[in-house]
Amino acid sequence: MSGHTELSDDEYDELLEPMAKELSAMARWVAETKQRVVVVFEGRDTAGKGGSIDMFARLLNPRQCRVVALPSPNERERTQWYFQRYVQHLPAEGEIVLFDRSWYNRAGVERVMGFCTPEQAQDFLNVVPDFERHLVEDGILFFKYWLCCDQEVQEERFENRLHNPMKRWKLSPIDLKARGKYTEYTDAREMMLSATHTDYAPWTLVDFNDQPLGRLTLLRDLLDRVPDTELPLAEIPWPPLGHEPHKERYGVLQPIPAYKVHKGKHGKH
Amino acid sequence: MSGHTELSDDEYDELLEPMAKELSAMARWVAETKQRVVVVFEGRDTAGKGGSIDMFARLLNPRQCRVVALPSPNERERTQWYFQRYVQHLPAEGEIVLFDRSWYNRAGVERVMGFCTPEQAQDFLNVVPDFERHLVEDGILFFKYWLCCDQEVQEERFENRLHNPMKRWKLSPIDLKARGKYTEYTDAREMMLSATHTDYAPWTLVDFNDQPLGRLTLLRDLLDRVPDTELPLAEIPWPPLGHEPHKERYGVLQPIPAYKVHKGKHGKH
Amino acid sequence: MSGHTELSDDEYDELLEPMAKELSAMARWVAETKQRVVVVFEGRDTAGKGGSIDMFARLLNPRQCRVVALPSPNERERTQWYFQRYVQHLPAEGEIVLFDRSWYNRAGVERVMGFCTPEQAQDFLNVVPDFERHLVEDGILFFKYWLCCDQEVQEERFENRLHNPMKRWKLSPIDLKARGKYTEYTDAREMMLSATHTDYAPWTLVDFNDQPLGRLTLLRDLLDRVPDTELPLAEIPWPPLGHEPHKERYGVLQPIPAYKVHKGKHGKH
Amino acid sequence: MSGHTELSDDEYDELLEPMAKELSAMARWVAETKQRVVVVFEGRDTAGKGGSIDMFARLLNPRQCRVVALPSPNERERTQWYFQRYVQHLPAEGEIVLFDRSWYNRAGVERVMGFCTPEQAQDFLNVVPDFERHLVEDGILFFKYWLCCDQEVQEERFENRLHNPMKRWKLSPIDLKARGKYTEYTDAREMMLSATHTDYAPWTLVDFNDQPLGRLTLLRDLLDRVPDTELPLAEIPWPPLGHEPHKERYGVLQPIPAYKVHKGKHGKH
Repeated sequence: MSGHTELSDDEYDELLEPMAKELSAMARWVAETKQRVVVVFEGRDTAGKGGSIDMFARLLNPRQCRVVALPSPNERERTQWYFQRYVQHLPAEGEIVLFDRSWYNRAGVERVMGFCTPEQAQDFLNVVPDFERHLVEDGILFFKYWLCCDQEVQEERFENRLHNPMKRWKLSPIDLKARGKYTEYTDAREMMLSATHTDYAPWTLVDFNDQPLGRLTLLRDLLDRVPDTELPLAEIPWPPLGHEPHKERYGVLQPIPAYKVHKGKHGKH
Repeated sequence: MSGHTELSDDEYDELLEPMAKELSAMARWVAETKQRVVVVFEGRDTAGKGGSIDMFARLLNPRQCRVVALPSPNERERTQWYFQRYVQHLPAEGEIVLFDRSWYNRAGVERVMGFCTPEQAQDFLNVVPDFERHLVEDGILFFKYWLCCDQEVQEERFENRLHNPMKRWKLSPIDLKARGKYTEYTDAREMMLSATHTDYAPWTLVDFNDQPLGRLTLLRDLLDRVPDTELPLAEIPWPPLGHEPHKERYGVLQPIPAYKVHKGKHGKH
Repeated sequence: MSGHTELSDDEYDELLEPMAKELSAMARWVAETKQRVVVVFEGRDTAGKGGSIDMFARLLNPRQCRVVALPSPNERERTQWYFQRYVQHLPAEGEIVLFDRSWYNRAGVERVMGFCTPEQAQDFLNVVPDFERHLVEDGILFFKYWLCCDQEVQEERFENRLHNPMKRWKLSPIDLKARGKYTEYTDAREMMLSATHTDYAPWTLVDFNDQPLGRLTLLRDLLDRVPDTELPLAEIPWPPLGHEPHKERYGVLQPIPAYKVHKGKHGKH
Repeated sequence: MSGHTELSDDEYDELLEPMAKELSAMARWVAETKQRVVVVFEGRDTAGKGGSIDMFARLLNPRQCRVVALPSPNERERTQWYFQRYVQHLPAEGEIVLFDRSWYNRAGVERVMGFCTPEQAQDFLNVVPDFERHLVEDGILFFKYWLCCDQEVQEERFENRLHNPMKRWKLSPIDLKARGKYTEYTDAREMMLSATHTDYAPWTLVDFNDQPLGRLTLLRDLLDRVPDTELPLAEIPWPPLGHEPHKERYGVLQPIPAYKVHKGKHGKH
């Protein structure tokens, strides 16, 4: 019923740690067995897509794991095949691609905000199952998450973005208009689920009224869906250096002075 | 003299917060006044480039701030003009681009590890000042940081990567070979500084033996180098919803059960 | 039964001219009514794909009409979804894209030469009809031509490439191996036709034993398949210059001397 | 003094042929010795850039020789470093890139038509010599041609585009406005030549009042500028087929009927 979490930071960290290790092992397995992974993150504005993606991205090698967050299509892209600009970001072997929003924009924000016609949205929904089937049959490991939250929580988070200068960038003009369309988004989601929740590419809904709990839930679910990924760490020979470690030695330029920490000021922590 | 920080998490957070706000204001200024920003992160292996970039990336809008971490060049790229694959990632207006390593690879890892000839490295150093001058004269706000650390600290961090499965991906085969080349890297850096530390594109060295302190130092320096960026937050009208907030309502699919938190287990925190 | 044409150059030009005008009108219609056009050129080696594409390309605005002739996939592309690297070249509105070979490589050269497994070729054939249906349903005007020729003709043309230094580049190492696989290519084509000759994306076979005649046949067919494309030319006001036309005037640099034509030497023509 | 050529088609073909062979040999040399070649085509509207580029493109392997004819920059590109969108098209080894207009747009059409400020044009001219020097020092073989013609000839060609439906696409709205700016274009060219005609990247002006003669002149000049490129053709074993050549054999689909040629109608040729 509220956006506040029931978990303390320490509790969260302690719960995350073993799953982080599993995720890390999964990524190694993806690399070594040359899998391709796509995770689609969709959901209610403010639900927590960005934070969830960050959770993954911080734990993974950025050269293996890419976040795809496309800007609005430009004039030319707007006239191309709808899937065209997404397709080019699909993973090569060993890669994990996280879509921060995706082709499902058409079934969500575009439909609700009138950026496409209802016919275009329906045509899209008709095509998606085929499109995703091709990806899955091609061997891509494909996961779709929709992050849910109640409007009360959404409103709180919007207001937080409004009043917190550091989060203001998260508040887009579309958010303002979307505030009043909560139920339209619900309806659009239900149509989307009806049309695109398939055996081979099922949706998973995750409650993000409590964001940290939502992230743990999502991560646990993903780890459970991926087949056994246990691989031993490679043995790496690690001989001693054989000499005293060197110190930095500066010629042309010196490091700048360190930021001045006034211990007293923070002593109370 | 060690990789451990003198700062507690809380101290770090408290010190970071006001600078995070400044950075956020800077990003708004970049967007509204249509600046283009490039920050190059170079430095010793394990010094903390990735963590520094994360600090920025977490605080900024991913649609405004891009991290460019290019993989090794492919066969075809290897034969192109050396700057070619970097140039295409330069920012458009309003954008901030963080280079996680950069064209300076040629003066560092490529030179030291023998991936280019000494002549190629020297040719590169001869060209860079011109290249960067063009960017700066074109109006790009351009910053270059080199992150320093002693070998003792580096060794600790390498071993941590070796033994921590979650960090193993950070340990590349090149790292293994590079361990023994600490002084060669120093020499290469000094040649690089001599050739490319210019008025219009100066290097800043930051001591990263203490990583959190290094990050704060780097961020403070960057904020100080950017001209006054104070802009008022736009007024955004925020009328009341006008109805009770809606709850999520599920038809086709229910959210999966939340991850089971055993409070007792973590009660001690 | 031979590669020689029954048409003189003048006859060919005279036959081409009215169709060239129609093609030109079609291109104007494509631009003004914002169509998207894809033409796939496949066929026997040496049949005349390149010459056919040239016929189009010379008559059309290069900013409207693009030729897509992809090189072999690189290491990374080889592991991506098979259609991925083709999809990014699909047309935006007003554009005509000519594919010089296409995704059908998998059903032809890749299958015959063993660059993919028979299973991969079959999987490909299973997916293609869906893939093309999506493009057609999206409104793309989509045409597929397969250019035929007898082996006797093919051999003549191969030998011409072998002996003519200007055409030697057309003779690839694969051609050498493919010489002996004429019937395997036939079989592969038949399987391809069975699987991918659909109502919405039919194949058209054109006999290219006589190349100029083949080109005229192909062009006539394409023009007949496109709906009525007659649009009046825009009126463009064209006032007189209002002064004597200027001559070139050179300051910094003079034109180089014209190539010396020895009329006598060519007088007999 | 006129746009008409002094050369008959046969004369032109006869003159072109030996140079076409040389060009072909040059391309082979470029491929085998891994050169990179850039040819910039600039010049008066209607002078004959397109036809010159076609002459090259028809004679060369499209997988080796690319034509780069960029559309107007989009909104985002307009704010990037001016050279950015050109740089990504520079050649890899073995490649020949023909620029149909180039970065010099800024010194020509953009300056004359007011699409950039005089300061931007001047800044551009200041940077170009450095930029091109870097390419040349990097080993790129770099050629710049400016195609000249008198206004009388230009007017004839404009009118031909106006009245010939097949050439109408060549008549852009900018052409209409540019008609009256012949001398401004001359002035802009002279400033450009003063600033960018360098030892390492010299301009070559070619008179294109007679287009076929202009093309021969340009091609001769280019061939003379490239170092000795004679390489023997590789020996390719060419055993006999060993069986009667196969005929096409059709199952699923028959070729369409050939275009009906009414010989009588063209008998006079």
